[in-house]
Amino acid sequence: MRKITILGSTGSIGKQTLEVIREQKNIEVVALTANQNIDLLEQQILEFNPKCVVVMDEKKAQQLQKKIGHKTEVLWGMDGLITVATLSEINLVVTAVVGMIGLRPTIAAIKSGKDIALANKETLVTAGAIIMDLVKKHKVQLLPVDSEHSAIFQCLDGAQASTVASIILTASGGPFRGYSKERLEEVTLEQALKHPNWSMGAKITIDSSTLVNKGLEVIEAKWLFDLRSEQIQVVVHPQSIVHSMVEFIDGSIIAQMGLPDMKLPIQYALAYPDRVSNSYPRLKLSEIGILTFEEPDLQVFKGLGLAYDALKEGGSMPIVYNAANESAVDMFLKREIQYNDIVKIIENAMLKHDVAQCTDETDVIEIESWTRNIVRNR
Amino acid sequence: MRKITILGSTGSIGKQTLEVIREQKNIEVVALTANQNIDLLEQQILEFNPKCVVVMDEKKAQQLQKKIGHKTEVLWGMDGLITVATLSEINLVVTAVVGMIGLRPTIAAIKSGKDIALANKETLVTAGAIIMDLVKKHKVQLLPVDSEHSAIFQCLDGAQASTVASIILTASGGPFRGYSKERLEEVTLEQALKHPNWSMGAKITIDSSTLVNKGLEVIEAKWLFDLRSEQIQVVVHPQSIVHSMVEFIDGSIIAQMGLPDMKLPIQYALAYPDRVSNSYPRLKLSEIGILTFEEPDLQVFKGLGLAYDALKEGGSMPIVYNAANESAVDMFLKREIQYNDIVKIIENAMLKHDVAQCTDETDVIEIESWTRNIVRNR
Repeated sequence: MRKITILGSTGSIGKQTLEVIREQKNIEVVALTANQNIDLLEQQILEFNPKCVVVMDEKKAQQLQKKIGHKTEVLWGMDGLITVATLSEINLVVTAVVGMIGLRPTIAAIKSGKDIALANKETLVTAGAIIMDLVKKHKVQLLPVDSEHSAIFQCLDGAQASTVASIILTASGGPFRGYSKERLEEVTLEQALKHPNWSMGAKITIDSSTLVNKGLEVIEAKWLFDLRSEQIQVVVHPQSIVHSMVEFIDGSIIAQMGLPDMKLPIQYALAYPDRVSNSYPRLKLSEIGILTFEEPDLQVFKGLGLAYDALKEGGSMPIVYNAANESAVDMFLKREIQYNDIVKIIENAMLKHDVAQCTDETDVIEIESWTRNIVRNR
Repeated sequence: MRKITILGSTGSIGKQTLEVIREQKNIEVVALTANQNIDLLEQQILEFNPKCVVVMDEKKAQQLQKKIGHKTEVLWGMDGLITVATLSEINLVVTAVVGMIGLRPTIAAIKSGKDIALANKETLVTAGAIIMDLVKKHKVQLLPVDSEHSAIFQCLDGAQASTVASIILTASGGPFRGYSKERLEEVTLEQALKHPNWSMGAKITIDSSTLVNKGLEVIEAKWLFDLRSEQIQVVVHPQSIVHSMVEFIDGSIIAQMGLPDMKLPIQYALAYPDRVSNSYPRLKLSEIGILTFEEPDLQVFKGLGLAYDALKEGGSMPIVYNAANESAVDMFLKREIQYNDIVKIIENAMLKHDVAQCTDETDVIEIESWTRNIVRNR
């Protein structure tokens, strides 16, 4: 039986993870964590009766503890996250927090021998080498939750690494597919927040529109599946039905398809290595009718090309790519910068950075701070 | 190392099998067989130096033996086929003959413990229960060569049967996709012989145009993958890029794709369980651009629905479906009947047949003869 902690249970992936658990009765929720949305966390406590919850702010933690009584313990801050990620009674941590905050609790969980259902992109993007070493050393499973990586994981099931020619990540292309550079200059926050297929959080929705999200996935895939960057292709597939593909050395391509519903990859990770039935709507290809595929326009969506550059530079460069994007998207969401500034800010930070090698999470956090400073003081 | 006999080496699949072997150096051709095309067989003898070859006609065998000298032994007839299908030095038989003639040598090969690369549809369609019992009993591998069944086989790789919801066979729809019943009345032999995607023999090309080929595949799939008929779906996919799919109980669909080239599934069967590289052209989805999917029109292409009827009736009915089609297509190729008569002949033979249970190949051959008589004397 899975006994789990969900880091980030009030975010988009966290909520959908709880939806999956509502349907799959054999998963026990031991701990939940939230950042701002304490009201929702309170509802989740009432429904799932976790042993522990964590909020980031001490005062809010104390208020919540008073309100809910002592059946559930309320912890706070990074120490709280690390505590619930390493509880002796859990065997899996769902890392559904957004951003760098997920790194330390994930490392702590792996060191405690917990399997990881990985929905936090930053973990592998910023600390891929460190994480994969720990995963091997502590013999835990790193189960991808992203629909693309889950697709690759499903397509590879049982296959030998030496038979893989390449993987092909699909990208919806976002709401600005087909736009020219000039047209992209005029994009508003409201337009960028409207994703055509997937319902996701604000930050990842912006990342999808710039294709930086796909860039982050390229970097993640490199670590997750032990590939060289030239083995990772991206194809634009606006219908988001084919969630990704593996091309084998004989030319055969295995693809995973489904409706665009994050509950599917979440359930696959939670139930792995089993598959379990559910009541979600089914894909019927004759109803979809048409699937299209095209090359991404790297001239217009430079954010994707920068991810390959970051991979080629290696070392700390992917941290800069990610942190600069995180800062820039934050500024864009606050209407402090224009849409096209996001990618310019990433490119600028990468230009200023001298690649270093990171050996532990402190190095990663240091490069991250350096990047945020560069972006703030530009 | 694979040491193989190819039953039917001068047909479409046989020739492509030898093309694969030309590129894969670790396969030894021990025996070849041909029906009419003795000249091509002679060339194949010169190139591959088999120990034995078989032709159907005794006189032609004797002529060929004289011509080629005694390095290769020339046998004839059904006894010859059974001899080369059971040679002690081979471990795999490629059954690439067309029609019922493949049944007895295939059964003999399985009984001798040979793995089977199955390209002969009639084997499972007419004797599925008998064959699958023998496969289990003699612990041999039955490796599908049809692109659709190879796709399913690849998608299922390692999956538990209990996790499979259904399989989805793709059909190109043939050259008459979208035709009305009336328009189908006027179809000529020349039109029916032009398949849009695949290069195949004449009989199978006609079967593709009537969707009877897909019907035969539905029946084959039932046996090969141990499914109920309601678990087997057909979707029309004119581009022939997705070669078939498996839908799992969680709603996830795994698909196998590639360019429409029979060498791929042939190579997969010969190399199984390995995958090996090759120099064949690669699928690039962005170059294909569009994949479409639609429901088959069962009102117009009644041949497909009759296959499901034959499965539901069970027992000997699939034999009648297959043999009536084989006779009818033969008559159509000789311009003795009209295109639409093919399916009418199948339907009529099935109506006249009382289902029996077949326990061995003699029963199968008897039902087959009965059907041919019914068709001849209609």
